[in-house]
Amino acid sequence: MNAPDPELLALNTITIKQSTLQQAIDGCARHDIRGITVWRDRLQEMGVPAAASALRANGLTVTGLCRGGMFPAADAAGRKAAHEDNLRAIDEAQAIGAACLILVVGGLPPGSKDLAGAREQVREGIAAMLPHAREAHVPLAIEPLHPMQCADRACINTLGQALDVCDALDPQRTGALGVAVDVYHVWWDPDLDAQIARAGKDRLLAHHLCDWLVPTTDLAFDRGMMGDGIIDLPRIRALVQGAGYAGFSEVEIFSARDWWQREADSVLSMMKERYAACC
Amino acid sequence: MNAPDPELLALNTITIKQSTLQQAIDGCARHDIRGITVWRDRLQEMGVPAAASALRANGLTVTGLCRGGMFPAADAAGRKAAHEDNLRAIDEAQAIGAACLILVVGGLPPGSKDLAGAREQVREGIAAMLPHAREAHVPLAIEPLHPMQCADRACINTLGQALDVCDALDPQRTGALGVAVDVYHVWWDPDLDAQIARAGKDRLLAHHLCDWLVPTTDLAFDRGMMGDGIIDLPRIRALVQGAGYAGFSEVEIFSARDWWQREADSVLSMMKERYAACC
Repeated sequence: MNAPDPELLALNTITIKQSTLQQAIDGCARHDIRGITVWRDRLQEMGVPAAASALRANGLTVTGLCRGGMFPAADAAGRKAAHEDNLRAIDEAQAIGAACLILVVGGLPPGSKDLAGAREQVREGIAAMLPHAREAHVPLAIEPLHPMQCADRACINTLGQALDVCDALDPQRTGALGVAVDVYHVWWDPDLDAQIARAGKDRLLAHHLCDWLVPTTDLAFDRGMMGDGIIDLPRIRALVQGAGYAGFSEVEIFSARDWWQREADSVLSMMKERYAACC
Repeated sequence: MNAPDPELLALNTITIKQSTLQQAIDGCARHDIRGITVWRDRLQEMGVPAAASALRANGLTVTGLCRGGMFPAADAAGRKAAHEDNLRAIDEAQAIGAACLILVVGGLPPGSKDLAGAREQVREGIAAMLPHAREAHVPLAIEPLHPMQCADRACINTLGQALDVCDALDPQRTGALGVAVDVYHVWWDPDLDAQIARAGKDRLLAHHLCDWLVPTTDLAFDRGMMGDGIIDLPRIRALVQGAGYAGFSEVEIFSARDWWQREADSVLSMMKERYAACC
């Protein structure tokens, strides 16, 4: 196994949620981090033109925009609002030159127990936004989320499920639709190796890093720094690279009790160190 | 869809963790609950012969014994200790006339990131205890646990995975090896319908009920009472019964912040009410 390439380390801005986008961009410059994935709330706070200009001025590769999706809704008005917001997300991704728009597809609408229906809404929602994404040359990356987030965040929970949607909506494998492989969400999957191979270069749009802590104390906000948990990170990198993925590896850590409490520069230092040592 | 049969409601004793086994048996009598699954710590506390006698005297169907398993270990001594404990669990299950021994298979050994290795240890561990289970006429029920418990409790996380083990170790479908379908662990699975059908009558050994709360505040001990969450319980019952399962439905609620804090009789009342209304 080759060592992780320092040129391919990216920061997902949520990892230093304590920072503005400008601070995150400056931090990447200080720590010589070459890629960045941006969250929309921080992008809108800075303003899209100013952010686009700062990202360009720093020579950063924008590995993604987080996030579109959240398709299932209780009624047509909710679905329409989600669709319109998703079109805006595509425009924002285009404006900052993002390599993809990450889709967190949404869970059950409030009060609903209709999981199959929610999943159907996801397929319809992606189909509806795909033409605009194609025109804007913004690939859509479906991110399967861990099954523990099925009810409230994303009802696509395995790579196999995400790839079924890709096959249905983009059978020609044009590159307009693919998946984000976040180790946190997929490490447990008994079908992981086969599904990464099935995705292949055309559909592998992102590789996200963090670690699974034992014990984990929160279903969403207790991710670990690489090396602090039990995920075999080099094995998963070998799988995605073996399937043809040659892009960035992006560190995305939601950590309310630990890393979000620290000084951002120390998080970036540790993230570089652990990327080299553990990934 | 037919209504839930009150004669097929069972109590898993963990639902009233606040009670001794004798108290749980008495509670079943008071509430006319016909089936019970027993945890080993409570069984040992009461003593196996006394418990067997009390269960019999009350005409209770013993739907299961919780639990065997916990196979993966860091070394041969750990594996041997697990094996010997599993043989004792079979003997206990036989002594109380349990319809099956539930297997919670265990997660990664401390310090290990070798998930494939842990899963192989599980297969080997089940294979090693199966002859004794056959002699004792105690079917082994592999319970796939939710993927959020993969690291620390069970590295078998889908019905498909559990059934692959069954097919490998009991290809003749003798009834000696099967699965426990706990709605909490499997509700999210996009392959659920197909895997329940695949299991069929021969391999469906248990059906466990509770609900998935939104939000869920703990990865193990925050299950909800049926009707308080988002699982479509009648749909899953229809699937298991449609596949030929005609046994009990057993209520198993781990709830540190709520149901374990209540008076046990009120839990049993509510459980009967919700079983009739929501399952």
